[in-house]
Amino acid sequence: MRHYSESALLTDLYELTMLQAYFSRGMDDTAVFEFFVRQLPPGRNFLMAAGLAQVVDYLTELLFDHDDLAWLSASGRFDPEFIASLIDFRFSGDVDALPEGTVFFADEPVIRITAPLREAQFIESRVMNLLHYQTLVASKAARSVIAAQGRQLVDFGLRRAHGAEAAVLSARASYIAGFDGSATTLAAPLFEIPVFGTMAHSFVQAYEYETDAFAAFAQAFPHNATLLIDTYDTEAAAQQVVRLQQWLQEEERDIQLKAVRIDSGDLDALARQVRQILDAGDCGGIGIFASGNLDEYALQALLQNGAPIDGFGVGTRMNTSSDAPYLDCAYKLVEYAGQARRKRSPGKATWPGCKQVFRHYDAHGVMCGDTLALQHDEIKGEALLQPVIRGSMLLTPSSPLSQVRAHARAQIASLPPALRGLDAAPPYPVAVSHTLQQLAQQVDEHQRAMAEADHAHWGADLG
Amino acid sequence: MRHYSESALLTDLYELTMLQAYFSRGMDDTAVFEFFVRQLPPGRNFLMAAGLAQVVDYLTELLFDHDDLAWLSASGRFDPEFIASLIDFRFSGDVDALPEGTVFFADEPVIRITAPLREAQFIESRVMNLLHYQTLVASKAARSVIAAQGRQLVDFGLRRAHGAEAAVLSARASYIAGFDGSATTLAAPLFEIPVFGTMAHSFVQAYEYETDAFAAFAQAFPHNATLLIDTYDTEAAAQQVVRLQQWLQEEERDIQLKAVRIDSGDLDALARQVRQILDAGDCGGIGIFASGNLDEYALQALLQNGAPIDGFGVGTRMNTSSDAPYLDCAYKLVEYAGQARRKRSPGKATWPGCKQVFRHYDAHGVMCGDTLALQHDEIKGEALLQPVIRGSMLLTPSSPLSQVRAHARAQIASLPPALRGLDAAPPYPVAVSHTLQQLAQQVDEHQRAMAEADHAHWGADLG
Repeated sequence: MRHYSESALLTDLYELTMLQAYFSRGMDDTAVFEFFVRQLPPGRNFLMAAGLAQVVDYLTELLFDHDDLAWLSASGRFDPEFIASLIDFRFSGDVDALPEGTVFFADEPVIRITAPLREAQFIESRVMNLLHYQTLVASKAARSVIAAQGRQLVDFGLRRAHGAEAAVLSARASYIAGFDGSATTLAAPLFEIPVFGTMAHSFVQAYEYETDAFAAFAQAFPHNATLLIDTYDTEAAAQQVVRLQQWLQEEERDIQLKAVRIDSGDLDALARQVRQILDAGDCGGIGIFASGNLDEYALQALLQNGAPIDGFGVGTRMNTSSDAPYLDCAYKLVEYAGQARRKRSPGKATWPGCKQVFRHYDAHGVMCGDTLALQHDEIKGEALLQPVIRGSMLLTPSSPLSQVRAHARAQIASLPPALRGLDAAPPYPVAVSHTLQQLAQQVDEHQRAMAEADHAHWGADLG
Repeated sequence: MRHYSESALLTDLYELTMLQAYFSRGMDDTAVFEFFVRQLPPGRNFLMAAGLAQVVDYLTELLFDHDDLAWLSASGRFDPEFIASLIDFRFSGDVDALPEGTVFFADEPVIRITAPLREAQFIESRVMNLLHYQTLVASKAARSVIAAQGRQLVDFGLRRAHGAEAAVLSARASYIAGFDGSATTLAAPLFEIPVFGTMAHSFVQAYEYETDAFAAFAQAFPHNATLLIDTYDTEAAAQQVVRLQQWLQEEERDIQLKAVRIDSGDLDALARQVRQILDAGDCGGIGIFASGNLDEYALQALLQNGAPIDGFGVGTRMNTSSDAPYLDCAYKLVEYAGQARRKRSPGKATWPGCKQVFRHYDAHGVMCGDTLALQHDEIKGEALLQPVIRGSMLLTPSSPLSQVRAHARAQIASLPPALRGLDAAPPYPVAVSHTLQQLAQQVDEHQRAMAEADHAHWGADLG
């Protein structure tokens, strides 16, 4: 039996009600939908695409199983003929998308779905759910990667991530963005992500003597022990760590402590004191790892100030993207039955037609502007959307994460320097091609004409 | 094969490294851990407990299966004897908890776990992950319930919830808090939550004439059609709805439109215009449903202003608890081997010992103060933590959601009126019992003595 997260019913009910209405009218011409972000969150200078691999899995495995069909029947909401039509429902369309790790901006399509209307419509909810979250986290995590200036970064966020899937997918998204690994064990078997783990305060508290706790842990992990030293008195604990390391070297030659972790208090001041104690005690090889409500701003402040910290656990604020816990994203119909479409709701107008993003670089390989254009516009520049699925055939399997990470690293490296800062920079220039602007105008004119015809038509019908 | 979200490896790696260290020393006396929130998010006056049912499922089903054990072996991190000890690892302890839907405040235990040390420690990550998220959402959703003053409330948040589990658990948590249902289809088969669904803008756009789209939908759902009217021009669409309703009544007597939905623009002004158009067209029976980035503040503003809106779709901001996307929660050791424990890290000190919360009411049944006390303190008042599991036996099955909802409703009704407001009120009084304060002092003194002994002991060892 499938897990519920793999059920076709993990969708908004309106996808199903729309499908029944389409089915009853026999509407199933080719539709094109695009997923994009309307605007960047305040203070953010770029976004980073992630989640495509999970979208591909979803699309290639999508089907209504017996349980799903039984529920649809029992609900009494749907016609039997419609439910029967879902038995063979599969995704048979095309997918074009930004490779994971690609930097992108407002209004630029992250994914384009071209499929029979019912398929392209139905997948909306889960495709958004998957793309939105990983993109949200990769975009946030990339900022910590920039701020950490090469220090080790570990995802610490399972406990306050929003559920199980958020925990494992944020481990994945942050690893894509450049984190070194995760504390979430499952990230290793699921995604081959390096995992890291030390001890909790409770471990120290379970022993009468703090130093006994340290010794027990060091003996259990002779080459890999990171000791949490802020349970009672951080400086006193650091002094005991020095004595312990000396004792371990004398008594058990094979044990070398790896690091200490500080999880509370003034991390800058404590790290300096601890570094001094360790160095004075001939423990220069023991690193300092910091954690506790950290984010890119805290990392930047600590490192600009020269805090001697070798690695960071970044959890909750990254996993929940706490300063911007959602993106203003949308999945919109841009073409149906060969005709471009556009929504005109106030503040939510969209660009019509099948689009492509062309990226331009300066002589130093630095990104200097994008053009949002129609797919077949002849524009020089790097075309960012790549074909992924054609007629339900996966063109290339999802890239290994090592490759995705390398791509993300290169993307960050080619950002204009101002965009790598944590504060809001002038927005990256995204031009709209002339043909796309023309198309938008044509669609508006057509829709206005149709609205008048609609009134006339239905007025006539009503007499 | 189990889904990954049911794997024992959905845990922080440090739980496993601590377990191995405990195992190697044979440490497994009874430990007591409590989960609590250190402080309420800014502007929040209360929290609402949720997620216990999923915690109980996790604890009663926890085991390391073949895949988990194989990964642990292959990882090379753990001793074979330790891995072998995990084959029979089960949760055999006791659980006491606030019933779901109970209102609580800072420092009050939401759950207390009493079990052999390794079990009580191991479950930390996933118990926190489950309790934190549903409590976060129920606490946020309860505010919309208060602000909606009885209007219909539907969870609209699947697409921007942080993954699959967040989507279904936020449907559950918001339903507990008083929402009427969810747009997430799976909420029905999983939790018997009423589900609601209408149409997207793409549905309107797929038709040449907007009114054709409305007619098709009404014919597919003759008794239950809610029409989305803001794709192009909301007022014009409302006029067409009136004509359509007249035509439907003349032509097809069995069709009655249920509502219109407005998803963008000035909801207050549009709702008034639409209400006027509908009423003037003899369509007083057609309701108005509003959605689009709503939260409790928007609801309150709309309803205080008298906007004629009958129901609301509340999505992203509720599902992500966007103004406070995480709670400052902790799962802390409070007793080991019969001795009370306490963490003293700066800003993160905790109350030691097995605790209970006693709630006091005034003559009108309004909550007037809690006492945080030791479990066996003799204090008048309602003891909030209830026994749930004893020695791995579930005492009572999880309550049906109807009962949890009734409890949550009663809890909200008994809140002091100031705490029901959306703005920050003076904090609810939570006293700390004299015996608990005394215990904290004793633990501090004992720990200071132990720290001195630690130095002396390890100093002596080191010579």
